[in-house]
Amino acid sequence: MVPIPILPATDADAVYRLHVFCCTNERPSTHRRGCCASKGSRALCDYMCRLGMASGVRRIRINHAGCLNVCEHGPVMVVYPEGVWYKYETELDIEEILRSHVIGGRPVARLQLRIDPTTLHG
Amino acid sequence: MVPIPILPATDADAVYRLHVFCCTNERPSTHRRGCCASKGSRALCDYMCRLGMASGVRRIRINHAGCLNVCEHGPVMVVYPEGVWYKYETELDIEEILRSHVIGGRPVARLQLRIDPTTLHG
Repeated sequence: MVPIPILPATDADAVYRLHVFCCTNERPSTHRRGCCASKGSRALCDYMCRLGMASGVRRIRINHAGCLNVCEHGPVMVVYPEGVWYKYETELDIEEILRSHVIGGRPVARLQLRIDPTTLHG
Repeated sequence: MVPIPILPATDADAVYRLHVFCCTNERPSTHRRGCCASKGSRALCDYMCRLGMASGVRRIRINHAGCLNVCEHGPVMVVYPEGVWYKYETELDIEEILRSHVIGGRPVARLQLRIDPTTLHG
């Protein structure tokens, strides 16, 4: 069955204007796909949460999330409603994504991850 | 600064056509706001993950998430890119949201949660 597209909520209706999910899934170190937690995602997500709260900007939310299933690219986050994906590695990356995209509305091209949906695992 | 709205990715570009996040945050039982985990969200989210995988439908994803900060309404989930929120309590609720909305593209009005963003905590 072909799903019927649903229009996103308008900005005014949305609970969160921008909602960020950082994969913080942890797998055993021997797992062949690796995991975002082993690449520092938990501390970096916590850092982004703290920065977001400290910004005082309302209606943005940063969350930990389970496995986003693009482990090979990790650590990854996705920003909704746009569905923009990022790979981040440092606190500077986090600061730039938060300041430029989440608060300023300008995606960060240098960190953006383009994932071909046909290559998804499983 | 007023953020610049960004158009959502088109359906064809999106990594996941629909991406569901269930709050599975746990707080001490004495916490005044309660938590989704104490209301069964973890098992129900796991159930939704299993059903989603068993459906064989590609480019949908069900994830656990940290606190979505609408604890009073829990257990809650949010479906992106639409930004539709649900309160769910039973496996039947989960089955209906998965079958009707996530797979079929028809939101489930009886379970939909309308949250006034001006009432958000903190």
